[in-house]
Amino acid sequence: MKKISTLLVILSFLIGVPAAARADEGMWTFDNPPLKQWKERYNFEPTKEWLEKVRLASVRLNDGGSGGFVSPDGLLVTNQHVAAGQLQKLSTKENDLTKNGFYAKTRAEELKAPDLEVNVLVSFENVTERVQSAVKAGATDKQASEQRKAVIAQIEKESGEKTGLKSDVVSFYSGGEYWLYRHKKYTDIRLVFAAEEQIAFFGGDYDNFTFPRHDLDVTFLRAYENGEPAKTPNYFKWSETGPADGEFVLASGSPGSTARLLTVSQLAYHRDVGNPMQKKVWTLRREILENYGKRGAEQMRQAGGGMRSFSNSLKRLTGQQDGLTNPRMFAKKEAEEKALKDELAKKPELQKIYAPAWEQIGAAYSQLPAMANRLAFSNLAPSRLGDIALRLVRYAEEIKKPNDRRYDEFRDSKLESFKFALLSPAPIYPELEEAALTAWLKEAEKTLGANDPFVKAALGEAEAAEIVKRAVSETKLKDVAYRKSLLEGGADAIAKSDDPMIMLARRVEPVIRELRAWNEEKITNVEASAGEKISKARFAVYGKSIAPDANFNLRISYGAVKGYEEDTTLVPFKTTFFGLYDRAESFGEKPPYDLPQRYKDGRGKLDLSTPLNFVYSADTIGGNSGSPVINRNAELVGLNFDSNIQKLSNRYWYIEETEGSRAVAVHSAGILEALRKLYDAADLAKELTGR
Amino acid sequence: MKKISTLLVILSFLIGVPAAARADEGMWTFDNPPLKQWKERYNFEPTKEWLEKVRLASVRLNDGGSGGFVSPDGLLVTNQHVAAGQLQKLSTKENDLTKNGFYAKTRAEELKAPDLEVNVLVSFENVTERVQSAVKAGATDKQASEQRKAVIAQIEKESGEKTGLKSDVVSFYSGGEYWLYRHKKYTDIRLVFAAEEQIAFFGGDYDNFTFPRHDLDVTFLRAYENGEPAKTPNYFKWSETGPADGEFVLASGSPGSTARLLTVSQLAYHRDVGNPMQKKVWTLRREILENYGKRGAEQMRQAGGGMRSFSNSLKRLTGQQDGLTNPRMFAKKEAEEKALKDELAKKPELQKIYAPAWEQIGAAYSQLPAMANRLAFSNLAPSRLGDIALRLVRYAEEIKKPNDRRYDEFRDSKLESFKFALLSPAPIYPELEEAALTAWLKEAEKTLGANDPFVKAALGEAEAAEIVKRAVSETKLKDVAYRKSLLEGGADAIAKSDDPMIMLARRVEPVIRELRAWNEEKITNVEASAGEKISKARFAVYGKSIAPDANFNLRISYGAVKGYEEDTTLVPFKTTFFGLYDRAESFGEKPPYDLPQRYKDGRGKLDLSTPLNFVYSADTIGGNSGSPVINRNAELVGLNFDSNIQKLSNRYWYIEETEGSRAVAVHSAGILEALRKLYDAADLAKELTGR
Repeated sequence: MKKISTLLVILSFLIGVPAAARADEGMWTFDNPPLKQWKERYNFEPTKEWLEKVRLASVRLNDGGSGGFVSPDGLLVTNQHVAAGQLQKLSTKENDLTKNGFYAKTRAEELKAPDLEVNVLVSFENVTERVQSAVKAGATDKQASEQRKAVIAQIEKESGEKTGLKSDVVSFYSGGEYWLYRHKKYTDIRLVFAAEEQIAFFGGDYDNFTFPRHDLDVTFLRAYENGEPAKTPNYFKWSETGPADGEFVLASGSPGSTARLLTVSQLAYHRDVGNPMQKKVWTLRREILENYGKRGAEQMRQAGGGMRSFSNSLKRLTGQQDGLTNPRMFAKKEAEEKALKDELAKKPELQKIYAPAWEQIGAAYSQLPAMANRLAFSNLAPSRLGDIALRLVRYAEEIKKPNDRRYDEFRDSKLESFKFALLSPAPIYPELEEAALTAWLKEAEKTLGANDPFVKAALGEAEAAEIVKRAVSETKLKDVAYRKSLLEGGADAIAKSDDPMIMLARRVEPVIRELRAWNEEKITNVEASAGEKISKARFAVYGKSIAPDANFNLRISYGAVKGYEEDTTLVPFKTTFFGLYDRAESFGEKPPYDLPQRYKDGRGKLDLSTPLNFVYSADTIGGNSGSPVINRNAELVGLNFDSNIQKLSNRYWYIEETEGSRAVAVHSAGILEALRKLYDAADLAKELTGR
Repeated sequence: MKKISTLLVILSFLIGVPAAARADEGMWTFDNPPLKQWKERYNFEPTKEWLEKVRLASVRLNDGGSGGFVSPDGLLVTNQHVAAGQLQKLSTKENDLTKNGFYAKTRAEELKAPDLEVNVLVSFENVTERVQSAVKAGATDKQASEQRKAVIAQIEKESGEKTGLKSDVVSFYSGGEYWLYRHKKYTDIRLVFAAEEQIAFFGGDYDNFTFPRHDLDVTFLRAYENGEPAKTPNYFKWSETGPADGEFVLASGSPGSTARLLTVSQLAYHRDVGNPMQKKVWTLRREILENYGKRGAEQMRQAGGGMRSFSNSLKRLTGQQDGLTNPRMFAKKEAEEKALKDELAKKPELQKIYAPAWEQIGAAYSQLPAMANRLAFSNLAPSRLGDIALRLVRYAEEIKKPNDRRYDEFRDSKLESFKFALLSPAPIYPELEEAALTAWLKEAEKTLGANDPFVKAALGEAEAAEIVKRAVSETKLKDVAYRKSLLEGGADAIAKSDDPMIMLARRVEPVIRELRAWNEEKITNVEASAGEKISKARFAVYGKSIAPDANFNLRISYGAVKGYEEDTTLVPFKTTFFGLYDRAESFGEKPPYDLPQRYKDGRGKLDLSTPLNFVYSADTIGGNSGSPVINRNAELVGLNFDSNIQKLSNRYWYIEETEGSRAVAVHSAGILEALRKLYDAADLAKELTGR
């Protein structure tokens, strides 16, 4: 189970470059698909039209996942766990959609997701030359950063005005390239079908990141425009049979973040400071939710999604850190860096310009450990209200500046999405808010000390419990209309609000700004300049032979459907419904191996030999959850939802399929079998298959 | 899948002793069951009658495995793979019982096994005092050995004459104890039922030593006496339900060999020389059979059993060697030995007598590496005819000596079993004999050199192919009557025989004798004397707190039925028929995951949720195959047939159940379900259950 982690993204920038791509390596951008590898390894030569159709049928779900259109009427498929946040927001004490699942027999019954934005990559354009040439010769890192920001804002604005599309300039190869990406945006997304979590996540945290696997991790949504189902002529035809053993397949989706091009000094920071700190924070946040969930069934329902999300992130992080702390693996990264430097040394004119970049990054990163605690704890992240307040306060400050001087997320091109998220009608649970924020501020105080600027700003002389109790109980931010009025009132209204949560946010925001400024000056600006140098050095030595690190934009990965060896035996390429019932029976249906009632009642209706899940060798990572897995005819044969344990450290390096690393998908035939036989969802199956 | 390996036994004697028994540790003799552990851990307090009944219902199959009576009419159950040798001997080109399985609907259809001897341990008696006191003070190792042999022969003879039972004096704790074991012997054993190898060994070498598992590794035999089914009032009642999760169970069987009490110098020899040599020999012998099997289907049938047996042995050996080459594990053995020596140092009067023993063994073993190739290759083992010839030639020599001076296997007490095996009517395949023996002698020549005494004796100036071709084609040893006539003609007839296989054996036997004498003088006599000392030192320091090493005599092991953690997930305690069909389907029924036709046709008849295999935490090893797994009421709930991969190095040390080490058994309910629904064997099921 994979979702992107935005927390890790903050600390992990993408620098340094290994040699040429291996085997099925690479999460490729659509401007540079690996045509040579496809032809040589799989005799696959897609047309331009094929690539365009696949791109336009693929979607990014801004909750943190991928999906694809599967009918001309806006129907799209993704994982249950990608939609889990929306399912929770649509649930009530009386009807828990996470637990019970959902199926809208008619369009009228489809439920509008409170705050889900879906994007389709409509076009892209290389703007590297324009961005890089905007940086004046002799500029400092800070000036360079400002000059880049200015030109990027300009490009986005021009494109937005010209096309009406959401236009973002995205950096690749650590600033080695810049591309303008134009997305079509859907914000009226409705829930059509969701499997029960018990079957979507059968086996729970234990089976997460393992194979053989038996999960129907599926949700169907429908994009609407102007109150009507969106017209989506580019969609994936649903394969009734799914993939054969050994078949070539591709995954089209938006992998969240890889860090394969980091320098050794950056990796060492991850290993020694960044990852352990991340583990500490996530463990704490999971504990906060666990403790809250113990108060009762309804509290457990409210906290459940978050707990599962942190458990998932922690299991993945453990696998990543196991890789990074393996001296043999780390030595490989050192050897790669040395090889590039050695090659560079043969070109003295380039070496002179580029070689200092590694030391610049090393010097920058040497300052990070001392700041790590402050950067991790100076925020109100565990509280949705706190987060809303902070975003409003920040908005008030930024909106006063000219477009090209604002924080990235407040540039004109992004304001619409910002407001959409801020004004979400999703339910807020004050009891949970209070418990989570109190525990968080207490831990911040414990970790940072009472004299820390953030702690002092947040608490003054008071107790966390007292501050938070008042802020949560008295804030009007629970009310969307109030948020809207503040937004419309603008900077002034926000600055003057006596809402206690806003006041708390106004107190801590200057500290957070200061930290952000420190981080930009000392770290990210250096990374951007040095990263560009290393990237250019890499291009000079090896050419553009490998894919850029993932950044939650659309990529295409590929490989073959195939099993692997584990210990001394074989793991098959697929599982069947037989295996689901075996695992449930073998554990006496003890949770997390219990089955939804319809699976117990409906066993006799199923053809148990129908495939349920399968594995394939493509290079994917968190964010690829929900990616359509397609065959060479662009038919959907599966739905990516996870990786196996052998693949977990692939954040830092590609892991060959010979090591048993595999992506895990729900089988298209298994989904159909369940829809038709267990869910009485013949209409939905018909929309997918035409019959 | 486990069978004992007699090859390894030769080189591995049992010396050195760790501290007290842990958790479910120990393959216990029936004179010293772990009553304290049973009571404390499982609240189990068996009566004397319980223990006696279990012992008398347990059988040892001298092909190398265990079993148990399951009806009052001589019916006994064991694994298909334990009976595989007999199945192959009963098979013909036209009817391959290994492949097709077998069921005798009536007693008249039961097939007599050609050369299977089954033993039941009827009584035992501690003769330590008598054996040890027979060794005179001041005797050299050689004299001590002769004195022990003499008294042992005397004890066996007295017992045999008095009881008519097969009477063997068996050494435990490396000579720390000697016991007289009296066995009732059955030699008329008939085949009642055998599962097809495809289902008995479903998953083949890949799934061997793994779990989850899906094997119906079952054969039923019937013991006859005087042409009638034997009366067996002590038998295990068949449990229709099998064990519950967490239930206390015991396994009663004959584990072949462990080497947990070896000294560090002996272990180092195993690790550095013994195991690699063993691997080389087994790999060669498997290759010989593989090459032969490639000639055609009938040749493959003839070679199949041997190939599987060597594959099994090699997979197990690899696991054992992986353990031994793990420095952390080896360091534990060093620490154990040091701890015992340190304790001994506190008792100077004992230290003086016992402490030199470790060095004596180390000095003896230091001579072994130089002889390892000669010891491994100076034999005719790959050829049944060569083996028969050698045994006859050896018999002729030994039978001339007084009883107490003969090789152990020719003592009066063992002659009956010797003759039974020698006169087996099992088929011999000359083409296979020729191929195997030729390849073997060629490899011996390559490894030992043309001037090696064994090679010179075997080949003289001729080519191996030429010598073997004549010996195999012209020998009359294929004819049981001829063997019988030689036996009856005695030493003189054998000495004068011009049978070319006998002549070959006569040429090489003196070399083999010389090596055996060297091994006895330099190694085993030293081990026996020094082993007794170390054993006494151990008793003095720790008492008799642990079980003796296994030696293919009856033991009782115990533990609980339970699953375990593996990597990050859970392995359940059992599998079901669902799992069998899942695995077959998931591999598209590609061998070794193909199913017998009756399993494909009969799927609809089965209750697929019936358990098929399960795991439990008892301490078992090769030789325990076929052991009845029983509950506290002495009901048979399963049939032991394997260990998982986590347990493989338990030859050298006990592995805690917390490490995931498990014994694997066929579930009693799964066997019944298959008998009733797939095999039309209602009568057999009724004999087991009464209904």
